[in-house]
Amino acid sequence: MTTESDFIALMRKIATDPAARGLADDCAVIDDLVLTHDMLVIGTHVMPDAAPEDVAWKLVGVNLSDLAAKGAAPIGVLLGYMLGDAAWDARFVAAFGEALSHFNTALLGGDTVSAPPSQSGAPRAFGLTAIGRATHMPVPSRSGARVGDALWVTGTIGDAMLGYLADTGQLPTAIVANKLVSDRYRRPNPRITEGRALAPLVTAMMDVSDGLLLDAKRLAMASGVTIGIDTRAVPLAPALCDTRSALPDLAVDALRWGDDYELLFTLPDGLAPPVPATRIGAVLADQGAPLLVDGIAPPTGQVLGWQHQGK
Amino acid sequence: MTTESDFIALMRKIATDPAARGLADDCAVIDDLVLTHDMLVIGTHVMPDAAPEDVAWKLVGVNLSDLAAKGAAPIGVLLGYMLGDAAWDARFVAAFGEALSHFNTALLGGDTVSAPPSQSGAPRAFGLTAIGRATHMPVPSRSGARVGDALWVTGTIGDAMLGYLADTGQLPTAIVANKLVSDRYRRPNPRITEGRALAPLVTAMMDVSDGLLLDAKRLAMASGVTIGIDTRAVPLAPALCDTRSALPDLAVDALRWGDDYELLFTLPDGLAPPVPATRIGAVLADQGAPLLVDGIAPPTGQVLGWQHQGK
Repeated sequence: MTTESDFIALMRKIATDPAARGLADDCAVIDDLVLTHDMLVIGTHVMPDAAPEDVAWKLVGVNLSDLAAKGAAPIGVLLGYMLGDAAWDARFVAAFGEALSHFNTALLGGDTVSAPPSQSGAPRAFGLTAIGRATHMPVPSRSGARVGDALWVTGTIGDAMLGYLADTGQLPTAIVANKLVSDRYRRPNPRITEGRALAPLVTAMMDVSDGLLLDAKRLAMASGVTIGIDTRAVPLAPALCDTRSALPDLAVDALRWGDDYELLFTLPDGLAPPVPATRIGAVLADQGAPLLVDGIAPPTGQVLGWQHQGK
Repeated sequence: MTTESDFIALMRKIATDPAARGLADDCAVIDDLVLTHDMLVIGTHVMPDAAPEDVAWKLVGVNLSDLAAKGAAPIGVLLGYMLGDAAWDARFVAAFGEALSHFNTALLGGDTVSAPPSQSGAPRAFGLTAIGRATHMPVPSRSGARVGDALWVTGTIGDAMLGYLADTGQLPTAIVANKLVSDRYRRPNPRITEGRALAPLVTAMMDVSDGLLLDAKRLAMASGVTIGIDTRAVPLAPALCDTRSALPDLAVDALRWGDDYELLFTLPDGLAPPVPATRIGAVLADQGAPLLVDGIAPPTGQVLGWQHQGK
């Protein structure tokens, strides 16, 4: 089985066009249009029994989150859809339309396919291409962080993890789950407004989809710097803050969990962001490792986030 | 199981943006960019044991064929890829890079996913979004055919069918297959140059992907006209012409088979196309049916092409 990082390494060799940004970014940029494509597989990215409404919302949300990180205003989407049960599909379409309306985004086209008849029970895969228009040029990338910048993140980290644990009956009893965390996991809310406000100011920006530490490491590598994160400064989900002393492991896990879809960005030191955000670290000259967590480089092989190996 | 036509009917209700062209087209148009997204499922669109080189080529070819029908010059693609066997994936990437180079098209980004570990033998699905730049505005659509126009098609019809029959050992012995027909099936060659030459002249244009009769019917419906096809005028694959009297059914089947990826277009009567093409019919005022085949409307329910129900 090919790993994602091996595959991207292969792909990078053939992605030599400047618009590809070395595949180090989540989006391509053509003229003032920003384009991204994310897939979602039932059983891999959502529960095998996920509600079609949640699948539709997540497919839209994760793609628009990539546009948000570029400060792009969503224009439209192309949908690649694997057909299934008629009632399920009808519910998907209804929720998909609602999600697009919510984000003022148009369905522009796409394709429908079927699994081979002999394998009609196969896990279904969906793809969405989202197209947005840049509101600020140049479009923010992952690669612009400069030594001396401060590292910031919007919102809170760990809500989606709590939602997953609650949905799967794994939430520690010390934590009182509410609908909010479940929604954060099932229906990510892309930070489009925040992304547009930040785009003219940031030196680098990306969304937190695979885990705060992993994504921060990627931003550092794309920028050729070291990023130092102060974990005590990370704004955890309120329920995690309340139980931090009782459940310290969970607070640590939250930094390695994905699905929060907050914006991670760097700003010149002294510049305050125009949207609610928390300063969680700094950009350092190359320290021999892309990431320092409370001053220490995580050992090679330590899991920093989701790299398409289970979960 | 939802049928493709039912699903598109549901989707059409939420695709109200003009750029979606009522989902009656294969592409969306934003500014002077043309965008399309097609998926390919192993076992559905290609043989279960298809070579990775052929899958890569077909994925690129079918998407660029949609751009060709718009007279668009390919710029780049976003790839949605479901990971699998490492050796297979490496061969795919190499061939994918070759196909993109062949068409002077860049890899701009995309996404990789995995099937759930418990279903790692599931049929793999791939998605490609192709982006092109229009060479003529307005971009040709399916909906511009006018009464009195002539109907034309490039190349020959039926080669891909023969290639499929040859590859699956079903070719009648009267027909001598050659590598050419097999390549037509496995590695469709989008008519990019022809599409650019035709774009300023045509009243409507599309590619023949699902079957000549079905695609002609779709063009007629999008244009609100009747299209009359003279089947004796259709330029069949040479091997089919040679054996037409001995194998009349096969010549009929060819009109209902897809995968030829020729261009079907309408021109004002008297205007000759600037590329090799054959006149195969005419655009008529509404005759109460979108399609007349040798003057007769095919009965409701007759299969005119591939509608994602087997093959």
